[in-house]
Amino acid sequence: MVKLRKKNKLWFEAIKVIPGGNGLLSKRPERFLPEYWPTYYKKCKGIKVTDLDNRSYLDFSNMAVGSCILGYSNSEVNNFVKKNIDVGNNCTLNSPLEVQLAKKIISLHPEFQKVKFAKTGGEAIAMAIRISRAFTNSASVAFSGYHGWHDWYLATNLNSNKNLNEHLLPGLSPLGVPKKLISTALPVKFNDVNDLNKIFSKKNYPKILIVEGARFNKMDKNFANKINEIKINKDIILIIDEITSGWRSRNGGVYKFSKLNPDIVVYGKSIGNGYPISILVGKGNVMDYAQDTFISSSLWTESTGFAAAIKTIDIFKSKNVSKFLYKQGMYIEKKWYEIARKTNINIVTNNFKPLITFKFKDFKDSDLISTYFTQEMLKEGFLATNSIYLSYAHKTNLINQYLKSFEKVFKKISKNKNEIKKNLLSSKKTADFKRLT
Amino acid sequence: MVKLRKKNKLWFEAIKVIPGGNGLLSKRPERFLPEYWPTYYKKCKGIKVTDLDNRSYLDFSNMAVGSCILGYSNSEVNNFVKKNIDVGNNCTLNSPLEVQLAKKIISLHPEFQKVKFAKTGGEAIAMAIRISRAFTNSASVAFSGYHGWHDWYLATNLNSNKNLNEHLLPGLSPLGVPKKLISTALPVKFNDVNDLNKIFSKKNYPKILIVEGARFNKMDKNFANKINEIKINKDIILIIDEITSGWRSRNGGVYKFSKLNPDIVVYGKSIGNGYPISILVGKGNVMDYAQDTFISSSLWTESTGFAAAIKTIDIFKSKNVSKFLYKQGMYIEKKWYEIARKTNINIVTNNFKPLITFKFKDFKDSDLISTYFTQEMLKEGFLATNSIYLSYAHKTNLINQYLKSFEKVFKKISKNKNEIKKNLLSSKKTADFKRLT
Repeated sequence: MVKLRKKNKLWFEAIKVIPGGNGLLSKRPERFLPEYWPTYYKKCKGIKVTDLDNRSYLDFSNMAVGSCILGYSNSEVNNFVKKNIDVGNNCTLNSPLEVQLAKKIISLHPEFQKVKFAKTGGEAIAMAIRISRAFTNSASVAFSGYHGWHDWYLATNLNSNKNLNEHLLPGLSPLGVPKKLISTALPVKFNDVNDLNKIFSKKNYPKILIVEGARFNKMDKNFANKINEIKINKDIILIIDEITSGWRSRNGGVYKFSKLNPDIVVYGKSIGNGYPISILVGKGNVMDYAQDTFISSSLWTESTGFAAAIKTIDIFKSKNVSKFLYKQGMYIEKKWYEIARKTNINIVTNNFKPLITFKFKDFKDSDLISTYFTQEMLKEGFLATNSIYLSYAHKTNLINQYLKSFEKVFKKISKNKNEIKKNLLSSKKTADFKRLT
Repeated sequence: MVKLRKKNKLWFEAIKVIPGGNGLLSKRPERFLPEYWPTYYKKCKGIKVTDLDNRSYLDFSNMAVGSCILGYSNSEVNNFVKKNIDVGNNCTLNSPLEVQLAKKIISLHPEFQKVKFAKTGGEAIAMAIRISRAFTNSASVAFSGYHGWHDWYLATNLNSNKNLNEHLLPGLSPLGVPKKLISTALPVKFNDVNDLNKIFSKKNYPKILIVEGARFNKMDKNFANKINEIKINKDIILIIDEITSGWRSRNGGVYKFSKLNPDIVVYGKSIGNGYPISILVGKGNVMDYAQDTFISSSLWTESTGFAAAIKTIDIFKSKNVSKFLYKQGMYIEKKWYEIARKTNINIVTNNFKPLITFKFKDFKDSDLISTYFTQEMLKEGFLATNSIYLSYAHKTNLINQYLKSFEKVFKKISKNKNEIKKNLLSSKKTADFKRLT
């Protein structure tokens, strides 16, 4: 049993000097267990995380928001990165690793010819949008899912603050995005064929569509078929954002399952196992527009990210990581349902197995019960939420440890269904942008 | 003497799979010595660069476009980064290094209260613009200098393809930037008080001004005074882009010399000695608008950049790096003039000493003579152009080696003034965007 301690005092120092306390909403303690989330790590390895008070946990939550897909601090990746650091990670001349990685990506995608690199997901997507706008010579973009903080995307909330509610967070403010960009980004509900139809049957339909390969659910066949139909009939540019979904269920991305025919695919996060690297790969005639507009950034040519991605992809392939993640996701899902039945708690799971997710069905306040679940799992020594971004370090023996505690906590919930609020030491987690800021 | 060899074949493989061959215009061989630039490195340390053919050079050019200000592969920085890699560079929890770096930055800027981090210069500036637009609730931005590839900046060329000619490169295309953004970014010539006056005496003057702290020249007193006057009288937001200039002539940035009173200052490149990290620091009441709009990115919280910047800043302070760079710049400038006089070649230097620059005065085709200079210096074993981004690794004995070869090459030029074109083995370098793409 881990004794809960009030949030580390470092967080209070952080919010004094950094607006929001850090650079990423998804790492703020308010998203988990506001007053008791450990918030900072001293060390992480595999799925073991040690906090600043030397308490250790196993991570069955988001593994660095999906970035550390091979497990934390993977030795093979680290050693290759360090070797690269020893010969110099940046120079007036170029790193040959940039070309090596580009060729590796192309070799996995016979349908594509050209590659570009960036450091973060948001800027890679912004680059994909710039290239697509240059190619189509039009500004309007239809999108489904979460695609970053940049103007092109947030512009959708200039019409209504609710446009991103289902794609990201409720109440996202587009303050600071030029109002002239109103109506340039049009939201499409994921897996909603009617919504697609509505937007693309207009006379002035957008010439660009960007969708996530998957989020918590896979893409329905009907939705994928409709996208393919629109792509052919309307001659649009299709971008698949695989920053979250990519490489989890198949090397190269889940879009391959959906038989989509994208012009550009974007990877990030997991592609470098947590190191800063993001990748665009696509058709040569489209990607070449990167040369007709100005796209260039000094630190994109820094090479630790190239090194990390080269080694990560090698491991994806040699260890068949995606198959492993899928299998572990299936196993957890099966066990979750068994425990839920045994403890008389209704849950429902989503169908993207490598990012397996459950929801409580019988509780009115889902944030409240989820926060309680996180609190009780923390006491058991687990970082746990309703979703597990599975990694190659989630070995079966660790999963079984987790399931034992999961069952204990579910029994506790079952016994005290009406006293959750009373037994919650922390305030409720928040998924609302306004309360995060 | 280094024997010139045709450009490495890897570059021809690169341009097949990467539009433009790499992620940064300033690292393309066309910018230096098109057919003979070594283009790729195998190893770099201090200022010594070894190419893929095992030829070695001393770098008296741009030191990773200004990033490696302590010299390549600095052991202290590398060891601190590697220590951080060993404990895990990314996690579901936050890295305490983020707070440590934020506090370090604040401690150097008593006038500022808040810090944000990103990975590349372009996205840090885009964040500064978003925050400033949120604060002022207006879109219009006046700018001077080079500030990245993002829409807000490139939009200036929607009016005229020539707006960025003096700030970056001639002929930059804004293709793919929404046309609705026309007239939202207004160029101001660096050190041109009249240009400033013209823009800010309009009734609908922009509420935001972003300027580079310095580029090849320092900011004139008159220009700085005018900015301060506008800041007070017009109540504008002032952003100083110190991505190139910062820490070269003073810890914290050259804006301190100019007695400017910015709301936000942005660092990049050199702040992490080549590792991907960029930093915004500014006034609390302005920076807090980062919380009122949506700004967030997963890989911003990855920690190798924090580690690199912490150690780099420690070295800036303990070794008084900026003083060293200034001294070395003064010495080189003095020696350049001596050699120029001795060899009867007219040159003129710019006044930002840590990025010391000379121009040939008596040659009609300055690109031609500069390319020839680069070619002959390459034969001598130096990566050399008209500018030297000085680093802490540019020790006096190495500078003296460079000056010896510099004199040799200047003598050669002096002897064969009319045969430069004939003696140039390569085609001429290009500074024009159209020819780079």
